[in-house]
Amino acid sequence: MGKQKKYVYFFGGKKADGKADMKGLLGGKGANLAEMVNIGLPVPAGFTITTEVCTYYYANKKKYPKELKAQVLAALKKVEDHMGAKFGDPKNPLLLSVRSGARASMPGMMDTVLNLGLNDVTVQALIEKTNNPRFAYDSYRRFVQMYGDVVLGLKPVDKHDEDPFEVILDNKKRQHGFKLDTELTAEHFKELVEEFKTAIKEKTGSDFPDDPMEQLWGSVGAVFGSWMNERAIIYRKLNRIPEDWGTAVNVQAMVFGNMGEDSGTGVAFTRDPATGENVFYGEYLFNAQGEDVVAGTRTPLPISKLAEDEPQIYKQLDQYRKILDKHYKEMMDIEFTIQQGKLWMLQCRVGKRTGFAAIRMAVDMVKEKLITKEEAILRIEPNQLNQLLRPIFDVEEKRKAIEGGKLLAKGLNAGPGAASGKVALSAHDAEIMAASGDPVILVRIETSPEDIKGMDASEGILTARGGMTSHAALVARQMGKVCVAGCGTLQINYRERKITVEDKDGITINEGDYISIDGSTGEVIMGKLETKPSEVVQVLITKTLKEEESPIYQTYRSLMGWADKLRKLKVRTNADQPDQAANAIAFGAEGIGLCRTEHMFFGGDRIMSVRKMIVSDTLEERKAALDELLPLQREDFEGIFEAMNGFPVTIRTLDPPLHEFLPHSQKEVEELAAALNISVEKLKSKIESLHEFNPMLGFRGCRLGILYPEITEMQARAIFEAACNVSAKGIKVKPEIMIPLVGDVNEFKLQEDIVRKAASEVTKEKGVKLNYLVGTMIELPRAAVTADEIASRAEFFSFGTNDLTQTTFGLSRDDAGKFLPLYVQNEIIPNDPFEVLDRKGVGELVKMGTEKGRSARPNLKVGICGEHGGEPSSVEFCHSIEMDYVSCSPFRVAIARLAAARAVVKETNSKKKSVKKAKSKKSSKKK
Amino acid sequence: MGKQKKYVYFFGGKKADGKADMKGLLGGKGANLAEMVNIGLPVPAGFTITTEVCTYYYANKKKYPKELKAQVLAALKKVEDHMGAKFGDPKNPLLLSVRSGARASMPGMMDTVLNLGLNDVTVQALIEKTNNPRFAYDSYRRFVQMYGDVVLGLKPVDKHDEDPFEVILDNKKRQHGFKLDTELTAEHFKELVEEFKTAIKEKTGSDFPDDPMEQLWGSVGAVFGSWMNERAIIYRKLNRIPEDWGTAVNVQAMVFGNMGEDSGTGVAFTRDPATGENVFYGEYLFNAQGEDVVAGTRTPLPISKLAEDEPQIYKQLDQYRKILDKHYKEMMDIEFTIQQGKLWMLQCRVGKRTGFAAIRMAVDMVKEKLITKEEAILRIEPNQLNQLLRPIFDVEEKRKAIEGGKLLAKGLNAGPGAASGKVALSAHDAEIMAASGDPVILVRIETSPEDIKGMDASEGILTARGGMTSHAALVARQMGKVCVAGCGTLQINYRERKITVEDKDGITINEGDYISIDGSTGEVIMGKLETKPSEVVQVLITKTLKEEESPIYQTYRSLMGWADKLRKLKVRTNADQPDQAANAIAFGAEGIGLCRTEHMFFGGDRIMSVRKMIVSDTLEERKAALDELLPLQREDFEGIFEAMNGFPVTIRTLDPPLHEFLPHSQKEVEELAAALNISVEKLKSKIESLHEFNPMLGFRGCRLGILYPEITEMQARAIFEAACNVSAKGIKVKPEIMIPLVGDVNEFKLQEDIVRKAASEVTKEKGVKLNYLVGTMIELPRAAVTADEIASRAEFFSFGTNDLTQTTFGLSRDDAGKFLPLYVQNEIIPNDPFEVLDRKGVGELVKMGTEKGRSARPNLKVGICGEHGGEPSSVEFCHSIEMDYVSCSPFRVAIARLAAARAVVKETNSKKKSVKKAKSKKSSKKK
Repeated sequence: MGKQKKYVYFFGGKKADGKADMKGLLGGKGANLAEMVNIGLPVPAGFTITTEVCTYYYANKKKYPKELKAQVLAALKKVEDHMGAKFGDPKNPLLLSVRSGARASMPGMMDTVLNLGLNDVTVQALIEKTNNPRFAYDSYRRFVQMYGDVVLGLKPVDKHDEDPFEVILDNKKRQHGFKLDTELTAEHFKELVEEFKTAIKEKTGSDFPDDPMEQLWGSVGAVFGSWMNERAIIYRKLNRIPEDWGTAVNVQAMVFGNMGEDSGTGVAFTRDPATGENVFYGEYLFNAQGEDVVAGTRTPLPISKLAEDEPQIYKQLDQYRKILDKHYKEMMDIEFTIQQGKLWMLQCRVGKRTGFAAIRMAVDMVKEKLITKEEAILRIEPNQLNQLLRPIFDVEEKRKAIEGGKLLAKGLNAGPGAASGKVALSAHDAEIMAASGDPVILVRIETSPEDIKGMDASEGILTARGGMTSHAALVARQMGKVCVAGCGTLQINYRERKITVEDKDGITINEGDYISIDGSTGEVIMGKLETKPSEVVQVLITKTLKEEESPIYQTYRSLMGWADKLRKLKVRTNADQPDQAANAIAFGAEGIGLCRTEHMFFGGDRIMSVRKMIVSDTLEERKAALDELLPLQREDFEGIFEAMNGFPVTIRTLDPPLHEFLPHSQKEVEELAAALNISVEKLKSKIESLHEFNPMLGFRGCRLGILYPEITEMQARAIFEAACNVSAKGIKVKPEIMIPLVGDVNEFKLQEDIVRKAASEVTKEKGVKLNYLVGTMIELPRAAVTADEIASRAEFFSFGTNDLTQTTFGLSRDDAGKFLPLYVQNEIIPNDPFEVLDRKGVGELVKMGTEKGRSARPNLKVGICGEHGGEPSSVEFCHSIEMDYVSCSPFRVAIARLAAARAVVKETNSKKKSVKKAKSKKSSKKK
Repeated sequence: MGKQKKYVYFFGGKKADGKADMKGLLGGKGANLAEMVNIGLPVPAGFTITTEVCTYYYANKKKYPKELKAQVLAALKKVEDHMGAKFGDPKNPLLLSVRSGARASMPGMMDTVLNLGLNDVTVQALIEKTNNPRFAYDSYRRFVQMYGDVVLGLKPVDKHDEDPFEVILDNKKRQHGFKLDTELTAEHFKELVEEFKTAIKEKTGSDFPDDPMEQLWGSVGAVFGSWMNERAIIYRKLNRIPEDWGTAVNVQAMVFGNMGEDSGTGVAFTRDPATGENVFYGEYLFNAQGEDVVAGTRTPLPISKLAEDEPQIYKQLDQYRKILDKHYKEMMDIEFTIQQGKLWMLQCRVGKRTGFAAIRMAVDMVKEKLITKEEAILRIEPNQLNQLLRPIFDVEEKRKAIEGGKLLAKGLNAGPGAASGKVALSAHDAEIMAASGDPVILVRIETSPEDIKGMDASEGILTARGGMTSHAALVARQMGKVCVAGCGTLQINYRERKITVEDKDGITINEGDYISIDGSTGEVIMGKLETKPSEVVQVLITKTLKEEESPIYQTYRSLMGWADKLRKLKVRTNADQPDQAANAIAFGAEGIGLCRTEHMFFGGDRIMSVRKMIVSDTLEERKAALDELLPLQREDFEGIFEAMNGFPVTIRTLDPPLHEFLPHSQKEVEELAAALNISVEKLKSKIESLHEFNPMLGFRGCRLGILYPEITEMQARAIFEAACNVSAKGIKVKPEIMIPLVGDVNEFKLQEDIVRKAASEVTKEKGVKLNYLVGTMIELPRAAVTADEIASRAEFFSFGTNDLTQTTFGLSRDDAGKFLPLYVQNEIIPNDPFEVLDRKGVGELVKMGTEKGRSARPNLKVGICGEHGGEPSSVEFCHSIEMDYVSCSPFRVAIARLAAARAVVKETNSKKKSVKKAKSKKSSKKK
């Protein structure tokens, strides 16, 4: 005869049936209660009915397994023995709580019943025991109400409908002219118990059950039932929790923090969840129940106060927190209750924390030898590093401003960090205002490449249109600027130089007024809030803080050091200017993965030469204009090569459609026509002829260089001349010339030939030897599909996943705002594909391109330079398909480094797991 | 000792060393000369030096194989024997021609030398033999000139430079005051020979070679040398002729058609190359050489005249043409010469023909049992069928108009056929003018969906902008309208209602003037030219001609009957209206593969309801507008279901961006605002809010139906109500609802649910049972990549290769005009991918989509509904990947049917070939 299946796990005293790693069977709460018992912490005794019972319950028309009853009774007996009281006993009654407890936390979604075991008889025993009739009757009426609501189903389904018990309670207070529950006496509560029971009889036709065992089974059934309530179903769907996990039910002896002044209750963390510091952090209230701490009606005291008031209890609690911290090797979130001078631990779980704290604690725990470096790296979500890098508002100051009604609007958190400044409504104004020393927030309906200088001059950028990958957002992140994008309620009136807000009548922000934007939350706030650069930035970039003075920086350095040793992917940066490149190196970049030459076209008077080139009618005119640009581009490249000091630099030849360089307003057109000495009509007709229906799919990328080879020629010359000049100074240079928007190997060949010819001419002229590569961006589906052909010529691939996402999805990121948010919200697609690389579609093409490319050229260098290069899960994907490097904006370099390291650790762990599985299969076979 | 390698192939008398299928070794000319000898035709004796000698020559520093000389001398001996004359003999000299002859025809690209063997001695023998000193000296001076130009290299490389011999000739004429060569006497020619020789001595430093053998080897070397001249290299590149094929050299006895009135020369075809009729067709001249017939200085006589003048010769010649036609089973192009009463055949090759003739001859030859049906089908390029379907100008009338300077411009031949009509510069004007009974040519800078009704009312459409797949071209082809697109030299002034032409100063075409456009050639001609529908159209569509009265129709019917029996692909049509559908059925369509519901939105007052729907602020307003549209759409679908009479009908739900339905001019906006009873500002802001940067990648396709499910719901209802109503009449209905622009299976699911819900509601209401399918268009790379997921729900795929080409290439067809023509011209890509399916990129995705789709749903129905569905090589591709059907515009249905049949024949042939190869390998192994 086989052993009976175990459905009930006892915990209490010094030994529990379960343990922490049984979350699947016992739920998170049950497993941790058992674990606390096992490590010697005082936990009110109880037992857990397993999730298997829940599964059985739903698979068998809401019946329990036949063994359950006996197991529950046996466990209950043990609880009675441990607690020295008896369930339903008229003299010494044991009271119980019944709580849900699923594998994953589902806070507030399922039902709880407290104070089980009370009836007209046992309440008398409670009065005697506590000498507190008001407490006893209050507990009793709460129990009847909770039981009526939860077990007997009197709680209204629609939250706008009234709870019948609350109606009775309100009536009672009104009768007596009371405002607060605290004004009610023991007698009032006693009356309420009767009135509640009458209401139950009326609504359900049955009496309230006085039998404790009936109360117990009713409550257990209600908790299992709540697994399938609507709230829980929706929550699981949203959080992707499988339905068949089921919930466990925890039945536990009640302890009371509100039994008098020698009782109390509190919540605490084993370390500071905000800073990560290894100090005890929490708060408590005397003579109170758990809900009082959370409700905010009384202000709780900091845990340090407990050390003064109850040094003995505090010492005990602090000892427990140390045990827990060390045992779990994690910051734990704990709940405790003091009942008449005795400390009970009611719950523990891994605590939530800020990114800042996560990093600090992970690094500290490695140093404390609690966890390995690999474990530390797995514990930090790479994006949490942002909190170490971004300028920040003072939390309190911001909260006050918002409470004071200063919150203007909320947009997309497109460029993390905090910035305050004067509103400028044009890039030009931004430059002027910044020149006079004022901090500036550039506010535009949307930005265009012409605004680059103004954006650079500003502290932050705020736009009314555009998404997370709009021009403003992309450039801001690359520049490390704060950015709030797509703030649709802002109505920006360029003519009247003011901003109004759709849902805030009467509020007007004029150009020059101060506003503050939080790019980590998307908040736009009126007025000025103080900001400061993070310590890491102070050490690395502004050099205003010394390493040894900043423990935060030291933490960062330790973590990044471990990450760098682990990762296989190289991390490069997207940078167009020497200062960006220098910042990126400070953040650990190992080269430039994308240097966009067109951004250089907007500096100084260059734009005039660019425009001259564009409106040229003849090759000669065009060449003359290009000759003006050559020395300027060369100078830029020299700066970048020097800044990168031997790291590889991938330079992309001209990419955007030419019309992006031309002016649009009548006034600007007139000015340009005058400057170029051509008629306004001619210039207009040129601009008109460059108009495109779908610029994204138009005359851009290598198509420009194929129609106008002289442009590529000039750029190649500028690159190689700069490389030779810098090389002559004894600085190593590794240029990698990248041809954009290639769809066919023939396009690549034509451009490659021009580049190689320029290289051989320039190196001959300068008498310098250069190592360089010529490769391409893979950003069209056709390039991925024909990657083998392209790799027969291209020496490297860099996946331009921004454009590849646009073409693969047939989705313009400038136009997707109308429907993409709805798509993500309704889970038609799991993520915004411009933020997180779409593995199923775009990723499949990236994989195909990489494999086909390497089939033709085994040593093909492969990287990614889309925005995804700095997005952690996308970096993981890049690692999984064995790319050589990712490239991202300077302020995401550290994030990418960490993500790359995590990818390695995860891979190793999953390999270990499968080896283990294979071994255990083998050994079980041997048996 | 092995046999000596054979480099020289003799032909002459009754037996040749070679034969027709040795074109690779002997070149086309040599092989056919040998074949004519073998079938008993009189050919001047000669020999062919093989292409292997050419290959050897270039592989061995321009040396010949050592065996060559002896083989040439032996062959020459045989020629002398057969012709009864001796090369270089002072009394009875044999004269030779030396001509190139490659495997593929390269007309005029390589060199020829005639009259070899003449010198001061042999010319005397020629005089005696012909008694015609002028002929003899003229031949001699021509030889010296040709030899000097070709062999000695005096011909100027730059064609602007003067030929030194022509200079001397001109001087001679000027001296004597002559205008024509015919005025020169024997004595003058004799002088010229001397003067030419002097010039040669001056320029080259050497004497002109009198030795005939030296002349022969010099000429052979020159012909081999000309294989690598610049012209030939470029020609080969353009025509993809491999360089290593090499050329053969044909050395042949000269015969002269200019030896007097009993001599003559001519060219002819074994059947009529224009109509295909089985009659002798050609022309000839007495006392003339080949070049005289071609040069046009004398007007040649029709071959029928020969029957009167020389009945014996004609009879003989007619007999030869019959032998050739029957032997080659092809219409042959022949050259003949009569020398002093004796007929010689000089050349034969497969002749060029019109599409019309190609079809007629292929069908006739099957009936004559010369070829099989499969062979006939392979001989007709599907596009040649166009000539049987399109209205046509009278060729003579058009030629006269063009010679009279009436050619206005040339654009793209976007919609084949011919049309004359009055110019209308707006769709509205076109409708009005057409209503008054005038034929109309709609002339627009470009067309938009709003112009549909005006296009429908016009005979033809002419645009200044846009390519082969512009809106105008697409719609025109679908409507079967004549269209010339992208005629860039036209300057269309809407305000002044006139057209001027860039390179034709002073010419103005006013609205209302007649013009004629030839959509098969792209010509735009001033004035009116008569047109007529083709006989096939008269029988099938206009029903103005009976089958039995039209042999042309009967030919068409035979051919299509054979094609239909062979093909495996079904052929459907793209049709939006009942009349289009009916035409398509007449052309053999087996269903509708794409019915675009949005075109229905422009009819009558519907556009107002559509616009109401678009500007609606609330769901209720939108539903009210949709309610107005429902009965109208239902009516359309009823018409289509009735016309298709049981054939499947694929209906695509709303696809284009909404802004396409809104007006743009201030006046129209004001009118619409008034009609909708909203403010102009509001309407403008709505229009503005719908503006997109890249409409191709924007808010369109199923994205519309996902954001506004009520649109899909209305359309599904209209479809199913129509289906039920028509079904109730006893007509079979097979609706296939197609969801456009799906990129993820979740999008499909959402739309599918709406469609299936409507279906179940409507069929319940109507009490009718319906079979229907729900499927999707695969037009995004992501759909192809995730086709397995999509096919888990979709019951059919239709590849929308127009959009798939745009997204795969990242190429907007509206904007590609700037660079795509250059790409095709420079062979960066082999074809315009919007015309011919790009197999390497787009095709690979189509293949992947089909395979992945069928992996998830083995019986998935797969078709194509892009423009490529009517393009022959693309149809072949669709067959090769085992699609179920192609769908194309009504007027391309027949073309697709033929292309589908050809695909089968080609496949079978290539299988036979590989079986044969495998067998011969096997048998050679056995040895």
